[in-house]
Amino acid sequence: MSRRGTFISFEGIDGSGKSTQARLLAERLRDAGRDVVLTREPGGSPGAEEIRRLVLEGDADRWSAETEILLFTAARRDHLERTIRPALDAGKVVVCDRFADSTRMYQGVSRGDLREIVDQLHTLMVGVEPDVTVLIDMDPATGLSRALSREGAEERFESFGTDLQTKMRDGFLALASDNPDRFVVIDGDGTPEAVAERVAAAVEPRLA
Amino acid sequence: MSRRGTFISFEGIDGSGKSTQARLLAERLRDAGRDVVLTREPGGSPGAEEIRRLVLEGDADRWSAETEILLFTAARRDHLERTIRPALDAGKVVVCDRFADSTRMYQGVSRGDLREIVDQLHTLMVGVEPDVTVLIDMDPATGLSRALSREGAEERFESFGTDLQTKMRDGFLALASDNPDRFVVIDGDGTPEAVAERVAAAVEPRLA
Repeated sequence: MSRRGTFISFEGIDGSGKSTQARLLAERLRDAGRDVVLTREPGGSPGAEEIRRLVLEGDADRWSAETEILLFTAARRDHLERTIRPALDAGKVVVCDRFADSTRMYQGVSRGDLREIVDQLHTLMVGVEPDVTVLIDMDPATGLSRALSREGAEERFESFGTDLQTKMRDGFLALASDNPDRFVVIDGDGTPEAVAERVAAAVEPRLA
Repeated sequence: MSRRGTFISFEGIDGSGKSTQARLLAERLRDAGRDVVLTREPGGSPGAEEIRRLVLEGDADRWSAETEILLFTAARRDHLERTIRPALDAGKVVVCDRFADSTRMYQGVSRGDLREIVDQLHTLMVGVEPDVTVLIDMDPATGLSRALSREGAEERFESFGTDLQTKMRDGFLALASDNPDRFVVIDGDGTPEAVAERVAAAVEPRLA
């Protein structure tokens, strides 16, 4: 993608600490004088936040997997147009808590038959990948106990047990293995500060 | 598509009378003892109606054309899953006021560069066409004056003048010409009852 900034996404299972690490990296880069936009998915722009609410509120079977993928892709397109692309065009660093890899991983785990459709839809309607994707790798049992100790409105995605967490971790590691130029896999074990040092060491050489 | 019912869509420019004709056909088929589901797009299922509100309310530039196409496709997928397909599987007649041809026509007129994307998205995520599409053909100036004399919340699509109405009519006629096995083009001039007779004569031989 022709642009002047750097697009960094964070991925990881629930409880991996990815949101904390996204925030710590954004703070560190700001302290170093860079112009940083910290954002998240689903959401990240006013329209995408409205779509996020439509998807995440209500019964778990309110939308089929196919409709949900379309809604998340609509939200991602809006987020890209209104938040990510303008920031990159202005030379900023965009740090995004989750991006398309989360959709790929979740659908790969829950509806493997839709994985190809997810990729085709992304290519057709989004077409952008991060410059760097930081995968915070975490033992599934540890991640799950951390996630369950938090208050959270998104229990749909967080209350399915260690088996599912293990599948999700494996799904993310497979995506990292398939995209070695884009992914960096960071050990999420340790204090947030210790993990943040590992993230910074991996990301800083790759900034535009 | 393997199914027992019949899927009939109505299309036409604003003011063509397509919604009236959809209703009159549904009433006529019910009077003849058939089980009929009368529905509409965008909307037609609880989830799709929520997406409809998200798209149609607010500023005209609230969503890009690409995001809007994704939202309409999400609504169409939900409508298909929750309303149309169950009715067809039960052997009913589905009469739908607008379906995918409306999206094709609007995007063809307003963003011709997206026409191919609209088709690819439809193939990927919807994949169903009506058995019969009734195009109520109408002189653009007449249609516009009829449309403007109504109260309507959807002024975004209705207040653009005769030039646009002419392009829309031409767009629908081009779709009919490209899909002669599916489309029937009905002259919309005359009383609703006279037009309804023409519609019935064209549709009734094609019922399952």
